[in-house]
Amino acid sequence: MTARGAFVTFEGIDGSGKSTQARMLADRLRADGHDVILTREPGGSPGAEEIRRLVLEGDPDRWSAETELLLFTAARRDHLERTIEPALTAGQIVICDRFADSTRMYQGLSRGDLREKVDALHDLMISREPDLTILIDMDPDTGLTRALGRQGTEERFEDFGPDLQRRMRAGFLELAQAHPDRFRVIDGGRDMESVAADVHKAVSSALR
Amino acid sequence: MTARGAFVTFEGIDGSGKSTQARMLADRLRADGHDVILTREPGGSPGAEEIRRLVLEGDPDRWSAETELLLFTAARRDHLERTIEPALTAGQIVICDRFADSTRMYQGLSRGDLREKVDALHDLMISREPDLTILIDMDPDTGLTRALGRQGTEERFEDFGPDLQRRMRAGFLELAQAHPDRFRVIDGGRDMESVAADVHKAVSSALR
Repeated sequence: MTARGAFVTFEGIDGSGKSTQARMLADRLRADGHDVILTREPGGSPGAEEIRRLVLEGDPDRWSAETELLLFTAARRDHLERTIEPALTAGQIVICDRFADSTRMYQGLSRGDLREKVDALHDLMISREPDLTILIDMDPDTGLTRALGRQGTEERFEDFGPDLQRRMRAGFLELAQAHPDRFRVIDGGRDMESVAADVHKAVSSALR
Repeated sequence: MTARGAFVTFEGIDGSGKSTQARMLADRLRADGHDVILTREPGGSPGAEEIRRLVLEGDPDRWSAETELLLFTAARRDHLERTIEPALTAGQIVICDRFADSTRMYQGLSRGDLREKVDALHDLMISREPDLTILIDMDPDTGLTRALGRQGTEERFEDFGPDLQRRMRAGFLELAQAHPDRFRVIDGGRDMESVAADVHKAVSSALR
């Protein structure tokens, strides 16, 4: 953890409950007296939200995998400069629903084999990693059923089938193993209060 | 020159007359019986035009130099995939008003010192170079007077003063020296018919 605020991200497959958990953590940390901002990707700053709309609206084949990767990276750069870094400098805890690990999985695995380009582009134009990443781990069949049953999910992200969700779960777990310093894996296949309690415990312990 | 069409770009400082020259070359090559498409950057495909609008509209400080570079690179990738490469594959001559050399100068020189990032990003996500680049060289004071007197120029590009125009002219000439295989430098400080005749001669000779 840096002395000047903390950058906490939530990752996981669709339907894992990570957005709910990010909100619940924000509420709990505020109740603990912390100054918290809750944000999300893609988006999170006015410019990044405009780029998000450009990427996610319209025909899914509107952009190639490479162009989409560049647009998401532009959005992330804006989000980082305009929202995340100023908040960290001001000493706030930034909780972000998805960050670069999602790009490593979604763009790196799902649309062509772009993983090397994803990593090189991140190193070149973003380079920042979170202080702490909460991976909400979940059985892909459960996650997919939840994601498909939910309202308001972007169609683009609903197109991913069970096989891809399984590869992504495995990919997220591999990332967590490769970076044990910043990853905490939480079992998301339980009632949300139990999950939230574990998340709160893991983050509070890291903040100390 | 590739057997499967040819990719010709025009470069130069603002007011150098390169857009006029690109149009005149297209007309002359068509009159010679060639199948020609004329395009421009930023923009040149429906997706890239949308990104262009996002970048150029609104407050000039709306995007950082790095975010702008990512957005322009996304637009270029789309333009390349959707307009330029298909035309080349179909055997057409593609004439493009500005391409990566403009990014090397405008983003590389003018907004922070981004030149190394510009080159690395190009190598990673674009990599294609033109078969032939026509640099319309011009005295910056003349170019600036022309650019400021013209209607319809994007305000963003009018903000560049004489000193920056001089650095860009020098930068374009350095690029031309570094890549003599693809660059032809044409003196733009003459009447447009004389310039057009020289451009046509240089391109026709390269096409043979």
